[in-house]
Amino acid sequence: MTAKLAGKARTQALASIKSWKKVRGRDAIQKSFKFTDFNEAWGFMTRVAMAAEKADHHPEWSNVYNKVEILLLTHDAGGLSLKDVALAKVIDAIA
Amino acid sequence: MTAKLAGKARTQALASIKSWKKVRGRDAIQKSFKFTDFNEAWGFMTRVAMAAEKADHHPEWSNVYNKVEILLLTHDAGGLSLKDVALAKVIDAIA
Repeated sequence: MTAKLAGKARTQALASIKSWKKVRGRDAIQKSFKFTDFNEAWGFMTRVAMAAEKADHHPEWSNVYNKVEILLLTHDAGGLSLKDVALAKVIDAIA
Repeated sequence: MTAKLAGKARTQALASIKSWKKVRGRDAIQKSFKFTDFNEAWGFMTRVAMAAEKADHHPEWSNVYNKVEILLLTHDAGGLSLKDVALAKVIDAIA
């Protein structure tokens, strides 16, 4: 069971990934990425997939040609946890 | 410009991919796939990505852990075309 982020720790953690937006109606964060074409979007997704598998923490995501939408939350925490913040940082570094 | 499927050709084409369902409100088809885990789902997606890039015809799709949702339509046709039917068959063969 992963701890759900709350209080000051939550505020600080989310402040470190400001480009990720809160999702309406779910305790989750999301971000959109746009690339030149599908080839480049897929390359990005593949690197994220490797990182997610390694961390055993996977995104909810969608792809339409050169666009990728990523939503992060921790299902077994019932909301955001430090795992999401860590994965968000890895994804930003890859992008 | 790709021709949009209509009339008898459309009926026959869709009859050949019956496991794909019509999407409400869009001239598109969709299908859900479920795998053992993310690793297997990603393997499937990678093979579909290669086929899509080769055909220069890309799906709208989403993934949550072991589940993959795929929606097909031809943007420049404004709806379903034979490209979607061909890609649907390739995806079914991969799955």
